[in-house]
Amino acid sequence: MEKILLLNGPNLNMLGKRNPQVYGTVNFETIEKRVRNFLVEHDISLESFQSNHEGELIDALHEADDNYSGIIFNPGAYSHTSIALRDAVEAISTPVVEVHISNIYARESFRQYSYLAPVVSGQITGFGIEGYLMAAYSFLKKQS
Amino acid sequence: MEKILLLNGPNLNMLGKRNPQVYGTVNFETIEKRVRNFLVEHDISLESFQSNHEGELIDALHEADDNYSGIIFNPGAYSHTSIALRDAVEAISTPVVEVHISNIYARESFRQYSYLAPVVSGQITGFGIEGYLMAAYSFLKKQS
Amino acid sequence: MEKILLLNGPNLNMLGKRNPQVYGTVNFETIEKRVRNFLVEHDISLESFQSNHEGELIDALHEADDNYSGIIFNPGAYSHTSIALRDAVEAISTPVVEVHISNIYARESFRQYSYLAPVVSGQITGFGIEGYLMAAYSFLKKQS
Amino acid sequence: MEKILLLNGPNLNMLGKRNPQVYGTVNFETIEKRVRNFLVEHDISLESFQSNHEGELIDALHEADDNYSGIIFNPGAYSHTSIALRDAVEAISTPVVEVHISNIYARESFRQYSYLAPVVSGQITGFGIEGYLMAAYSFLKKQS
Amino acid sequence: MEKILLLNGPNLNMLGKRNPQVYGTVNFETIEKRVRNFLVEHDISLESFQSNHEGELIDALHEADDNYSGIIFNPGAYSHTSIALRDAVEAISTPVVEVHISNIYARESFRQYSYLAPVVSGQITGFGIEGYLMAAYSFLKKQS
Amino acid sequence: MEKILLLNGPNLNMLGKRNPQVYGTVNFETIEKRVRNFLVEHDISLESFQSNHEGELIDALHEADDNYSGIIFNPGAYSHTSIALRDAVEAISTPVVEVHISNIYARESFRQYSYLAPVVSGQITGFGIEGYLMAAYSFLKKQS
Amino acid sequence: MEKILLLNGPNLNMLGKRNPQVYGTVNFETIEKRVRNFLVEHDISLESFQSNHEGELIDALHEADDNYSGIIFNPGAYSHTSIALRDAVEAISTPVVEVHISNIYARESFRQYSYLAPVVSGQITGFGIEGYLMAAYSFLKKQS
Amino acid sequence: MEKILLLNGPNLNMLGKRNPQVYGTVNFETIEKRVRNFLVEHDISLESFQSNHEGELIDALHEADDNYSGIIFNPGAYSHTSIALRDAVEAISTPVVEVHISNIYARESFRQYSYLAPVVSGQITGFGIEGYLMAAYSFLKKQS
Amino acid sequence: MEKILLLNGPNLNMLGKRNPQVYGTVNFETIEKRVRNFLVEHDISLESFQSNHEGELIDALHEADDNYSGIIFNPGAYSHTSIALRDAVEAISTPVVEVHISNIYARESFRQYSYLAPVVSGQITGFGIEGYLMAAYSFLKKQS
Amino acid sequence: MEKILLLNGPNLNMLGKRNPQVYGTVNFETIEKRVRNFLVEHDISLESFQSNHEGELIDALHEADDNYSGIIFNPGAYSHTSIALRDAVEAISTPVVEVHISNIYARESFRQYSYLAPVVSGQITGFGIEGYLMAAYSFLKKQS
Amino acid sequence: MEKILLLNGPNLNMLGKRNPQVYGTVNFETIEKRVRNFLVEHDISLESFQSNHEGELIDALHEADDNYSGIIFNPGAYSHTSIALRDAVEAISTPVVEVHISNIYARESFRQYSYLAPVVSGQITGFGIEGYLMAAYSFLKKQS
Amino acid sequence: MEKILLLNGPNLNMLGKRNPQVYGTVNFETIEKRVRNFLVEHDISLESFQSNHEGELIDALHEADDNYSGIIFNPGAYSHTSIALRDAVEAISTPVVEVHISNIYARESFRQYSYLAPVVSGQITGFGIEGYLMAAYSFLKKQS
Repeated sequence: MEKILLLNGPNLNMLGKRNPQVYGTVNFETIEKRVRNFLVEHDISLESFQSNHEGELIDALHEADDNYSGIIFNPGAYSHTSIALRDAVEAISTPVVEVHISNIYARESFRQYSYLAPVVSGQITGFGIEGYLMAAYSFLKKQS
Repeated sequence: MEKILLLNGPNLNMLGKRNPQVYGTVNFETIEKRVRNFLVEHDISLESFQSNHEGELIDALHEADDNYSGIIFNPGAYSHTSIALRDAVEAISTPVVEVHISNIYARESFRQYSYLAPVVSGQITGFGIEGYLMAAYSFLKKQS
Repeated sequence: MEKILLLNGPNLNMLGKRNPQVYGTVNFETIEKRVRNFLVEHDISLESFQSNHEGELIDALHEADDNYSGIIFNPGAYSHTSIALRDAVEAISTPVVEVHISNIYARESFRQYSYLAPVVSGQITGFGIEGYLMAAYSFLKKQS
Repeated sequence: MEKILLLNGPNLNMLGKRNPQVYGTVNFETIEKRVRNFLVEHDISLESFQSNHEGELIDALHEADDNYSGIIFNPGAYSHTSIALRDAVEAISTPVVEVHISNIYARESFRQYSYLAPVVSGQITGFGIEGYLMAAYSFLKKQS
Repeated sequence: MEKILLLNGPNLNMLGKRNPQVYGTVNFETIEKRVRNFLVEHDISLESFQSNHEGELIDALHEADDNYSGIIFNPGAYSHTSIALRDAVEAISTPVVEVHISNIYARESFRQYSYLAPVVSGQITGFGIEGYLMAAYSFLKKQS
Repeated sequence: MEKILLLNGPNLNMLGKRNPQVYGTVNFETIEKRVRNFLVEHDISLESFQSNHEGELIDALHEADDNYSGIIFNPGAYSHTSIALRDAVEAISTPVVEVHISNIYARESFRQYSYLAPVVSGQITGFGIEGYLMAAYSFLKKQS
Repeated sequence: MEKILLLNGPNLNMLGKRNPQVYGTVNFETIEKRVRNFLVEHDISLESFQSNHEGELIDALHEADDNYSGIIFNPGAYSHTSIALRDAVEAISTPVVEVHISNIYARESFRQYSYLAPVVSGQITGFGIEGYLMAAYSFLKKQS
Repeated sequence: MEKILLLNGPNLNMLGKRNPQVYGTVNFETIEKRVRNFLVEHDISLESFQSNHEGELIDALHEADDNYSGIIFNPGAYSHTSIALRDAVEAISTPVVEVHISNIYARESFRQYSYLAPVVSGQITGFGIEGYLMAAYSFLKKQS
Repeated sequence: MEKILLLNGPNLNMLGKRNPQVYGTVNFETIEKRVRNFLVEHDISLESFQSNHEGELIDALHEADDNYSGIIFNPGAYSHTSIALRDAVEAISTPVVEVHISNIYARESFRQYSYLAPVVSGQITGFGIEGYLMAAYSFLKKQS
Repeated sequence: MEKILLLNGPNLNMLGKRNPQVYGTVNFETIEKRVRNFLVEHDISLESFQSNHEGELIDALHEADDNYSGIIFNPGAYSHTSIALRDAVEAISTPVVEVHISNIYARESFRQYSYLAPVVSGQITGFGIEGYLMAAYSFLKKQS
Repeated sequence: MEKILLLNGPNLNMLGKRNPQVYGTVNFETIEKRVRNFLVEHDISLESFQSNHEGELIDALHEADDNYSGIIFNPGAYSHTSIALRDAVEAISTPVVEVHISNIYARESFRQYSYLAPVVSGQITGFGIEGYLMAAYSFLKKQS
Repeated sequence: MEKILLLNGPNLNMLGKRNPQVYGTVNFETIEKRVRNFLVEHDISLESFQSNHEGELIDALHEADDNYSGIIFNPGAYSHTSIALRDAVEAISTPVVEVHISNIYARESFRQYSYLAPVVSGQITGFGIEGYLMAAYSFLKKQS
C-alpha cells in the first residue's frame, strides 16, 4: 500500500496555541486526521512526523527516500534559513510538496524567501490548513 | 448556479507554443476543458477570459466582483510588475486564487516577487497545469 | 472658455467601494462634481476621463496637449510602475499636477516612489479628495 | 480668533539669495505677507517663525500644540535627516501640512525621502511659493 | 516577397515634438520612409505599427510570428518595465532586433536596464534614427 | 514557589575559555550561582539549561510555557540566524528577557541584528555577566 | 556624595502625552522621582536634564565628564541620526548607559540602528520606564 | 584617404579558440579582413590593433585622436572594469563605436554594465561578428 | 599517537547519491579510507564523524579541543548559515581546515559566503574529494 | 584688512582629550594660534568660532557671507549627517574649504561620506592639524 | 619532461617587505625554490613568472596554454578587479589553481570576492606560503 | 639633495585637451614646472613620471621606495578601480599624498570612492592644479 509522509517543522506542534489570528485554532492532530481520512479513501496511508530539530528533519527526509511515494512538508521557519534542508530535499528523489498555512508573502520580509521553494515540486501558501489537503490532492492527481 | 472565473494574463494564449521545456506542451483550451469538466461535476460552471492587456484584466476583475463566487487567476508576467492589478484584486470582495504553471521561485530573480501574492487568498506555484485544478479544488473545499 | 482635464488612473472608478478606511467613502462622481462647481465659478470648464488602461492614459495625455490649459492627474498605481506615462507627461507642454488621495509616503514602500513626480509641475498627496480641489486652486493661482 | 502657525526650517531665511534658479527670487517676508493677507480675509491670523536650529523647531511644535488650529511647515533640509522632528509632529495633535518650494522628487536622491511625510496631514511639493497658499487654502477647506 | 515589421512603442508617435535635444527633430513618418526605401532596394517590404498600449504590442508580436522574417522593435519606456513584452519576444521564433534612438546607458538609471535585451538577437543603442537603418542592414546581412 | 528559567544557547558552555577579551574570564557556573543567590533572596528559585542545539532550545521554550514566571535567555549566535527560536518565543506567553554578554552592536555586522529582539519583553546588551543579574532584577520589578 | 546624571533627549518632555500605547502614560517627572528615590537609598544623588537640542546634549555630556560617576542617557530619536552625540560619548570617560523606553527593534527600520550603541557601556531597551531603574541598578552593581 | 581604426581589447586574440558556443568559431583575422573589404569599397582604409594591456589601449586611443575619422572598439572585459578607458574615449574627439560580439545583457551580471557605454557614439551588442560590419556601416551612414 | 578528526556536516552522508554531476560518485566511506591510509603512512590516526545536526557538530568541535592535533571540516550547507559553528571553531584552539568538495564560488550566490572562512586556518575549495587529502597534507606540512 | 573665518564643528572643543591615537594631542587653541600666525604674515586676520550646535554653525555661515574672504571649516560629525549645513554652504558665496584632521576614508563607513564635499571649493583630509595650515595656504594661493 | 608554471601577480615581488604581519617574512625566491624542489622530486620542472602588469599576466596565460600541464596562480589584487584575467583563464585549457597566501575571507570586504574563483580548478586560501606547495601537491594527485 | 616624485596616472597626459570645463586649460608641463619651481626654493628637486599603464605605476611606486622622501600621486581613474595600486602604496614606506584636480565627490558616484584614500598620508581634492602645490607644501611642513 502506497504511503505519504506528512512532515512538519519547528513550532507546528504549537498549532492552535500560537497566534490564532494568523494560524487559526485548529490543532495539529486535527490536520493529521483530516489528511489521513482523505488519503485512506484513495488507498494511501499516511505517516506523520514533527520535529523542532533541523537535523532530525534532514534525517527524516533521507530516510523517507525509499519508503514513501510523496512528502507533504511544512518546513516552518526553517524554510527561510536552512540551506541544509534544501540540500536534503534535492538529495532525495521522492517528490516533496511545500505547504505554508499562512500567506508568507503577506508577512515580514524575512518570511518571503524560501530556500526550499526552488527545489520542491510545488508550493502551496496561504490556504490555511486546507493547504495540506490540496497537497494530498496533488499527489492523487499524479496517479491518474 | 454558481460560477467560477478562469482569468489568464499575458502570453498564456501562446501556451503549448512557447518554451515547452518550461510550460509543457498542453495548450490553453485543454486546461480550460479540464477545469470545466472538474467543476461541472460539482454543479459549478466556468467562464474563461484571457488578455494580454493589463487594463482589460483590471476591467475583468472589477466586473467579476458581483458575478462569480471565485476567481482562478494566472497573472503571468504582470504578477511581477503590476501594482494596478494588485489594487484591483484588493478592491473586490470575490476571493482570488493565484496560479503559476512554472515554479517562479526557481527562475530569474525578477520573477520571484509577485505584487499580487500578499492580497490573494492563496498561491499555487510549480505544479504545471495541475495547479489550475488544485485551485478549482480549493474553491470546492470552501463550500463544504 | 478655458478647459481643465481631470484624468484618473486605474481602480479610481472603484472609489467609495475599495478600502474605505484608506480612500474614504466619497465616490468618483462626487469628486468630479465638486471640482467642476469650483472651476465654473472661475469661468473654467472641466472635462473628466478615467481609464484602467495605461495606453489609454498615454493617448489621453497626448490628445490633451493642445486642448487644455492644465491637467489634474491621479495616476493611481501607475505612478509607481509606468515610465511610459512619465514620458508622456514630459512630451507635452500642458502643465500636469499630480494628486494622490491617500498619503503615499505612509504606505507600502513600493508606493513611495512616483516615476511622474520629477516631471510634473507639483504634487499634492495625503489630503483626501480635497487634494483635487487644491490642484484646481493651483491652476487658478497661476492665472492671477 | 483662529490662528495658523507658519513654521520654516533651516536656510529659508536665505530665500531670494540662494539658488534663485531653484527657489525663485521672492524673499521670505513676501511669502509671509501673502499668506497673512489670504488668511485675514477668512478671519484667521498668522504667526510666523523661522529657525536654523532643529531643537528650536521641535520646541516650537511642542508649544504650538494648544495654541494653533493648524501648522504650515517647511522643514527644509531637516525633512530628510530629522527623526526628532517627525516625532515632534507625531507627538502633537494640531494638524501639520508639509510644504516644499522646489520639487524635491526632481533633485538629489537624498532629498527624495522625507521623514515627516508619513506623519503629516498632507504634503505639497513643487509649486514654488504658491505651495504655502495652497496649504493655507487646505486649512480653509477643513472649516467648510 | 519578404517582409519586415517596424514596431514602435509608447510615445514614439510624439517623435519630433518631444525632447528634441534628446531625440532629434525627425518625425516618425520620416524614419518609416527611410527604412522602407532602404529595404525596397533589397526586395523587402516594410510594415509599420506603433502603439502606446503594452497589450497591443504583445498582440502584434504574437501575430507577427508567422508573417515576417524579422522585427525591428523600439519598445520605448516599456523596455524598462515590461516582463510581459520580454515573454512575448521569447515566445515567438521571428528574430527581433531592439533599437533605441538615444543612448539609454547615458540617461537615468532606470533606463539603463532593458528586460528585452537578454532575449533579442541584438541591441543597437545611441545612434539616433540611424539605428533603425542599422537594424534593417542587420537583417540584410543575415540573408547573404 | 515562583521559578525563573535561565536559558543559554550555543557555545555559552565554553564561557571563560573562549575569547576572554570579549566575554571575560568568569565561567558559566559562577553566573548561574550569582543569579540563583540573587533570586533566592526574593523567594524565587532558578533552573538552568544550556544547549548547543537549536531544536533543544525550542523544546525548552515550549516546555517552559506553563512552568516558569519568566525566562532569562541568552540565545548566543542563534539570535542572528534563528527565526524558529523567534517563533518559539512568540508562541509562548511566559515573558522572555534577552541578554547578551558582549555589546553585539559593537561587533561584526552580522551580530547586530537579533531575530528575537522584536518579540522579547526587553533586551539587555553589553553589561557583561551583570546583564544576567539585571534581567533577574527586571523580573523582581514586575512583582512590585 | 556620588552623582548620576539622567539625560533625556528630544520629545521626552512630551512623555505621557505622546503615543501612550507606545510610551505609556507615566510622565517625565515620575520617572525622575522614582530613579532619584532608588539612588538616594544607596547614597547617590541624581541630577536630571532634558533637551530637544542636539547641541545642548553634546554640551551636557562634555560638562558631565568630570562631575558624575555615571550617565543614564535616553537619546530619543537622535540615537538614530547623530554621529556627533556618538563622538561626544566616546570623547568622555564617564560611563554612559543607553536606555530606550520602547523596544526599538520592534519599530520602524530606521529606529533599529543606534549610532551610540557601539560606544556605550551597555544598552537597555523595551522595558518601559523600568529601564531607567535597571540602568541605575547597573551603576550600583559596579560599586560592589 | 580616410582611415578607420579597429581596436580590440583583452582576449580577443583568442577568438575562435575560446568558448566557441559563445563567441563563434571565426578567428580574429577573418573579422579584420571582412571589415577591411567592406570599407575599401567605400574608399576607406582600415588599421587594426589588439592588446591585452589596458594601458596600451589607452595609448592607442590618445594617438588615434588626430589620425582616424572613426574607431570601432571592442573593449572586451575592460568594458566592465575600466574607468580609465572611459576617460580616454571621452578625452578624444574622434567618434568611438562600441561593439560586443556576444549579448552582454544575457550573461553574468558583472558583464551587464559598460563604463564606456555612456560616452561612446553608440553601442552594438549581440550580433556576433556582424556587429563589426554594422559599426563600419554606421560610419558610412555618417558620410552620406 | 597523533590524531586528526575528519568532521563532515549535513547531507554528506548522501555522497555518491546526490547530484553526482556536482559531487562526483565517490561515497563517504571511500573518502574516509583514502584519508586514513594517507595519514597512517605518517603515523597519524584518523577519527571520523558525520552529522546532520548543527548542535552535534558544535558539541564535536568542543570535545575535539584537547584530543586532536587538527580538524578537517566540511561544514556543508551550515558554512553559509551557522554563526554558532563559527563561534565553536573560534572557541577552540585546535586548528581547523575547511574543505568544500565543489567550487562553492561557482554556484548559487548564497553558497559563496562561508561564515567559517574568516576563522579557519585555511580553506580548500573545488578540488573534489582530493581536497580532503590536501587538507591532510597541510597538517603534515605543519609538522616538518 | 582681509579676514578668514576658522569654523569648527561638534566635539572639536575636546581636541587633545578625545581619542589621542586618532586626533593627536594638540589642543584647539594651538591650532588656532598656528593658523593665525601663518596668516598674519600675509596680512590676513583670523577669527575663530566653534560650536556643537548645528543651528549655530548654519547661522555662522550665513553671517560670514559678507564679512570674510574665505572659510576654513571642519564640520566634524555633521559632515556625515547634515544636509542643512550643505545648503548653508551652497547658499553663501564666500568660498569654503573643508578640513578633516583624521583620514575619514580610513574609518567607519558612515564617516566616508560628506554631504558638504560636493559643494565646497576643496577638501583636505588626513593631514592631522597640518590640514588647517594647508587650507590657509590655499587661500593665499588664490590671492597670487 | 612535464612543466608547471608558477605565476604571481602584482606586488608579490615585494613579499617579505610588505605587511609582514599579514604575509610573513619569507621572500619570493624562497617560495619558488621550495616549490621547485618539491616538484623536481616528482620529475616535474617549474618555471616562474611575476608581473605587476595585468596585460602581461594575460599574455602569460595565453602563451602557457600549450606548454604547461598546470598553472599555480596567485593573482594578488587582480583577483578582485580583473574580469580580463578571468576570461584568460577560461580561454585556455591548462588547469589553473588559485592560491592566496593570506586568508582573503578574513580581510577587507573588497578582497572577499575573486573573479577568478568560479573558473579555476580549485582555490587554496589562508595557508601562507604552504598554499603554493599544496597547489603543487594537487597537480601530483592528478597524475596518480 | 632631497627628492620628491610627482606621479601621474592615466589620461593626465591629455590635460588641457580633455574636458576643459572640468580640468581647466593648464597643461601637464605647466603643473610640473610650477611644482618644481616651488620645491627648488626649498632645496628639493622634483622628478616626474606619467603613465597610462597600471603596471608601470606599480613598478614606479616600488622603485621610488628608497629614492624619494615623498610622492605626490594623482592616480586618475585608477583611484576608483585599482586595489593593486593601493597595495603598492601600502607596501612602501615613502609617504604618498593623493591629489585630485577635480572635486571627485561632486562627480559620478563611481568616482566618489578611492581605493587608495585609506592608505595614503592625506588626500587633497577639488583645488584644481593648486592641489599639487598644496601637496608639495605639505611635504615642506613635515620638515619644519
